[in-house]
Amino acid sequence: MRILIVNPNTTASMTRRIATAAERVLAAGTELVAVTSSMGPASIEGYYDEALAVPGLLQAIRQGERDGADAAIIACFDDTGLDAARAMAGIPVIGICEAAVATASFIAQRFTVVTTMERSRLPVEALVHRYGMGMRARVRAADIPVLSLEDPASTARERLCREIEIALREDRAEAIVLGCAGMADLPRQLQNEFGVPVIDGVAAAVKQAEALVTLGLSTAKRGAYAFPVEKTYTGMLASFQPDVAPAA
Amino acid sequence: MRILIVNPNTTASMTRRIATAAERVLAAGTELVAVTSSMGPASIEGYYDEALAVPGLLQAIRQGERDGADAAIIACFDDTGLDAARAMAGIPVIGICEAAVATASFIAQRFTVVTTMERSRLPVEALVHRYGMGMRARVRAADIPVLSLEDPASTARERLCREIEIALREDRAEAIVLGCAGMADLPRQLQNEFGVPVIDGVAAAVKQAEALVTLGLSTAKRGAYAFPVEKTYTGMLASFQPDVAPAA
Amino acid sequence: MRILIVNPNTTASMTRRIATAAERVLAAGTELVAVTSSMGPASIEGYYDEALAVPGLLQAIRQGERDGADAAIIACFDDTGLDAARAMAGIPVIGICEAAVATASFIAQRFTVVTTMERSRLPVEALVHRYGMGMRARVRAADIPVLSLEDPASTARERLCREIEIALREDRAEAIVLGCAGMADLPRQLQNEFGVPVIDGVAAAVKQAEALVTLGLSTAKRGAYAFPVEKTYTGMLASFQPDVAPAA
Amino acid sequence: MRILIVNPNTTASMTRRIATAAERVLAAGTELVAVTSSMGPASIEGYYDEALAVPGLLQAIRQGERDGADAAIIACFDDTGLDAARAMAGIPVIGICEAAVATASFIAQRFTVVTTMERSRLPVEALVHRYGMGMRARVRAADIPVLSLEDPASTARERLCREIEIALREDRAEAIVLGCAGMADLPRQLQNEFGVPVIDGVAAAVKQAEALVTLGLSTAKRGAYAFPVEKTYTGMLASFQPDVAPAA
Amino acid sequence: MRILIVNPNTTASMTRRIATAAERVLAAGTELVAVTSSMGPASIEGYYDEALAVPGLLQAIRQGERDGADAAIIACFDDTGLDAARAMAGIPVIGICEAAVATASFIAQRFTVVTTMERSRLPVEALVHRYGMGMRARVRAADIPVLSLEDPASTARERLCREIEIALREDRAEAIVLGCAGMADLPRQLQNEFGVPVIDGVAAAVKQAEALVTLGLSTAKRGAYAFPVEKTYTGMLASFQPDVAPAA
Amino acid sequence: MRILIVNPNTTASMTRRIATAAERVLAAGTELVAVTSSMGPASIEGYYDEALAVPGLLQAIRQGERDGADAAIIACFDDTGLDAARAMAGIPVIGICEAAVATASFIAQRFTVVTTMERSRLPVEALVHRYGMGMRARVRAADIPVLSLEDPASTARERLCREIEIALREDRAEAIVLGCAGMADLPRQLQNEFGVPVIDGVAAAVKQAEALVTLGLSTAKRGAYAFPVEKTYTGMLASFQPDVAPAA
Repeated sequence: MRILIVNPNTTASMTRRIATAAERVLAAGTELVAVTSSMGPASIEGYYDEALAVPGLLQAIRQGERDGADAAIIACFDDTGLDAARAMAGIPVIGICEAAVATASFIAQRFTVVTTMERSRLPVEALVHRYGMGMRARVRAADIPVLSLEDPASTARERLCREIEIALREDRAEAIVLGCAGMADLPRQLQNEFGVPVIDGVAAAVKQAEALVTLGLSTAKRGAYAFPVEKTYTGMLASFQPDVAPAA
Repeated sequence: MRILIVNPNTTASMTRRIATAAERVLAAGTELVAVTSSMGPASIEGYYDEALAVPGLLQAIRQGERDGADAAIIACFDDTGLDAARAMAGIPVIGICEAAVATASFIAQRFTVVTTMERSRLPVEALVHRYGMGMRARVRAADIPVLSLEDPASTARERLCREIEIALREDRAEAIVLGCAGMADLPRQLQNEFGVPVIDGVAAAVKQAEALVTLGLSTAKRGAYAFPVEKTYTGMLASFQPDVAPAA
Repeated sequence: MRILIVNPNTTASMTRRIATAAERVLAAGTELVAVTSSMGPASIEGYYDEALAVPGLLQAIRQGERDGADAAIIACFDDTGLDAARAMAGIPVIGICEAAVATASFIAQRFTVVTTMERSRLPVEALVHRYGMGMRARVRAADIPVLSLEDPASTARERLCREIEIALREDRAEAIVLGCAGMADLPRQLQNEFGVPVIDGVAAAVKQAEALVTLGLSTAKRGAYAFPVEKTYTGMLASFQPDVAPAA
Repeated sequence: MRILIVNPNTTASMTRRIATAAERVLAAGTELVAVTSSMGPASIEGYYDEALAVPGLLQAIRQGERDGADAAIIACFDDTGLDAARAMAGIPVIGICEAAVATASFIAQRFTVVTTMERSRLPVEALVHRYGMGMRARVRAADIPVLSLEDPASTARERLCREIEIALREDRAEAIVLGCAGMADLPRQLQNEFGVPVIDGVAAAVKQAEALVTLGLSTAKRGAYAFPVEKTYTGMLASFQPDVAPAA
Repeated sequence: MRILIVNPNTTASMTRRIATAAERVLAAGTELVAVTSSMGPASIEGYYDEALAVPGLLQAIRQGERDGADAAIIACFDDTGLDAARAMAGIPVIGICEAAVATASFIAQRFTVVTTMERSRLPVEALVHRYGMGMRARVRAADIPVLSLEDPASTARERLCREIEIALREDRAEAIVLGCAGMADLPRQLQNEFGVPVIDGVAAAVKQAEALVTLGLSTAKRGAYAFPVEKTYTGMLASFQPDVAPAA
Repeated sequence: MRILIVNPNTTASMTRRIATAAERVLAAGTELVAVTSSMGPASIEGYYDEALAVPGLLQAIRQGERDGADAAIIACFDDTGLDAARAMAGIPVIGICEAAVATASFIAQRFTVVTTMERSRLPVEALVHRYGMGMRARVRAADIPVLSLEDPASTARERLCREIEIALREDRAEAIVLGCAGMADLPRQLQNEFGVPVIDGVAAAVKQAEALVTLGLSTAKRGAYAFPVEKTYTGMLASFQPDVAPAA
């Protein structure tokens, strides 16, 4: 089984840490392919970055599927381009936010997602709501620029811990979800430090992707995720013109 | 006052009909600038097209703002790229779906949106829910390819009427919202034909855009719509690298 | 186009300030008729006042429609008698609360309504919920009697500002909605003072009323807003006996 | 214990049937006072009638409280004026819709309310939602004018039975709530006929009113139901000017 | 009329206090039978205790019904085994949580339930939500072990009062619901002390049980509460094998 | 890694089919232990059976944990006793309904659960709602007694297929969830037959259990899932008296 993980943030050091976290939980026999998107923002912070990260992400998933991936993971906590990727691809696609909150739902009744910047708080809150956990999860921002997580000299980890403490006290969180792919190296340490389950979406998504492949399940192609309709694409993005849709 | 209306479907004939519908309801003293996006799909049908229409849309709004527009309208019923555009722009941005359902909410307790293709039904349903009308509005698809609305020989209008009849009978709809920018020429005829209010989002959005400008209101730049953070953009989309954010 | 605005608080000085705020945003060619209700409470604070303000309000709208108004606005933030007025009238009727929250929804993801008295907080909260903004808006009361807004010597403005500060800090409000028709003179000053969008329902409702008239839309007369059925009315309110309903 | 029941429909024959239904379920030692409102519509069908029935209703409750009633019931299924009456009165006030749906909630997971006219369907649906039963109850209209229930020669009973059959089959209703005070004489017969629990709000409200009195509970006067504030009332409704509020 | 009240906590002193509270509100002619469950936990604190209290509870209700009870009450605030009991029994069954929150809904718009232990807070919150009061009620735990309420020397009452104070101040609660059957002796004292309505579920449930019997209503046997299907039960619980279901 | 799967239906042939389905998807290195509960109903159909299946289920999980299981699965689609088991156990516990709907959420926007008997429909619907999929999933009953699935001569499979057809046509389901552990042998056949993803909860739960163990995650012991408090248990169930809770 081959799992593709795409980092839609165009920062290769971040992809390496994501890959390390993913490899730690791979089942025997699973191969991981980690790819950095080749176009778009260095980090995704808010709606504008998110929108412009999507073409590069889609390109990487399309290429990965052609190269034989059995499932794809989008390694950004705002589940960038998830719906478009699901419609485009014939293989299952998993977002790390959806994987993280589904996993949290099996071990805690109330949990808190701690994400990076205030401008990402409401987009993540909307995802949590969409995934059916609006009544069970709170979302907090620790005021951490995404790329500061790449910098060992930054205070990002301290800020994250401070926000986790607030979540445990004020939200009565029973578990913590780390709300950024750039935090994928931290869950075990933080779990030891705080004595509550700490969930990283990257590792969670790997297990969900493996699960879907083993179960023989892929995206339903009936309804909103039907393959794109053939049509003309113009301008800079003409290369994204959809292939002829596979027969249903 | 200058209102920019961008058609993110890269089909100029559709833009012309949109402009005609918009001009019919302009207040005295409002100037309309109608623009066809220069890159992306000829028509937006589902998540994949929608995602790839966003860069062209953002480019057109950025240019329009630089050229002096006071407000911008996104003329596609899935409110393509609305959040990204609001974060990017200093002027207010209105989606035709949100304008249409807000307008419908003032005249009917229950209404039905009739959109084009089945693959657009759930995305529009999610918007209607996001705009707070999930309990009051139904969404139906009439099985009409978007570009067939450009073709006078197609049966698009018949299919639309058939679905409106079903909505009136089965949903007990009190009003109808036309769920595609390509239907912007139809509301008055259909209103006469069916004897219930029929709302087109293009015209509705023009009035909302004018309202915001007159009221001196623009997008709140505190929270999720804060201007994008400066950072490196790479690859084909490098030209979208955000400007230095204006001072708050 | 003639817009009727009815103040269901029987206090003429308040009507004058409402009219001033409304006139400031009128489109060229719109005529405003501002009327004070002739029966009921001097100010509407809570459910009891609200119920007893409705007959006077309905009378004024009925008269206004006979005199040629194209749309009517109810200038009290609890949208007093809105459903009854919509059922009675052949012209569109807009409440200032619904207009304000719809307008806020186009420029902010989260906003706070600051109303007058604690006893009005839950009724306004119920409206905000009904208008689909329950997840996006908070309601606060600044402990301001309505008529103190008529008195330049009162501390009403200070209390309002104090509550806005709390809303910005604790609710992370991105915009503020002024929750009383008696605050219609304040939005521009407060917007300058706090640096966030501040929305007044009176001005917002004027633009919505104009929009409906221009768009050729009026209340759907199918369903709950059908014209009242002919029947006997007795006692003090016999004069409210409905006319023969116009043909559909 | 003395229970006041007010029929806000100004039709005395209807009040007599309501009183008969109420008396059938009175506890030993409870006295019933049934009153017809002295002003307003002969029957309440839709928002307009409802609004104009409120002053007469409030007057009757105020008088009843002065005459020693321990609790009051509003005998119209749209719970006409309930909030205003609760704020005004020092005694508990119960609506027949809220009593019926609370009672139904103890014996069925899914139930259907069958009301009279289509124009009353959405108002009742809004009540059911407000009372927290939106996920558990459906509302249907049997197309029965309220006063036809007073006429033994009408087909009202047949239409009601037809709609109950549809509710049992299509909604999989486990119980039926009769959605009009004018149906208060029917529950036992219909229960026998259809073999499912049938709930009448008048009788249900009597038991809830008795319960509150026995439990020593009355409306909370903190918050939205605080006694009305003293102020000037003008015009035809000046007599409704609130008394000095009792000390909290 | 004979009302059975079962205490699923196997602590007889608690049952005696429950019986005293219940008797205080009985209607003339109602007989009360109070029973302590003969198997399971001494007190119910959390999901595990709750699950293991159910067999004893069901046994007591089955016996009570055979002995002629007209209705049954489950005297534990997590409404232990309510659904199973309703399916099993031919008589109506009332939980004290559902009775308390329905009663509170008639006298307050916002109220707070104060329960015992933190581990019971979320289960009670889920009940409140299920009963449709999720938007209107908050749940707080006062950190009181259930059996400490049996001990006059404990600080349970102080802790309860402290939490009520917080609820009045921070939740703006208009009324308080006591969230444990072991608090059934306290409502009148606390009502005097705090000046807001205080509701005990035991007394509330007695009145609801009487109401259902008087109204001739019992659990709908169509749908989820249909009598259990005949089948083999094995092992320690074989005696619970359902009887042949009565004819519908 | 050792996964315990407990069938709370006391029917060994059903457990064998469950084990077969589970083994088909085990990761290399995972050992499966399948256990039939030793007390309670032969099949779980509705609330009464469900409640009386819990003690046997808890006993089996407690024994399995002592024998070294790393995670436990409850193999009944009503997720019988899930909360009690989570509170009791130190290892993670997964229900097959929650696993199935979480898995479905990754591949379809709208799906339908097809369960056995009408009396199980509402309990499953409540679970689907609790798991956050109330807006995305429908629940249907195919009128199949659970044990008929053990009988190759029954028409159970035909009835199931008929209901799937209805779900695809009327609910526009994009995927089907099989709503009974006794259907665990069917997903691949049905997926081929209907051409849409078909999800079995048993296999889905195996993958979720493996995922939690690999991720080093277990039930949060802070809040509602804290270990049971020590106390006296009496009567037939005295052996369930909780052990001293492990140190947090």
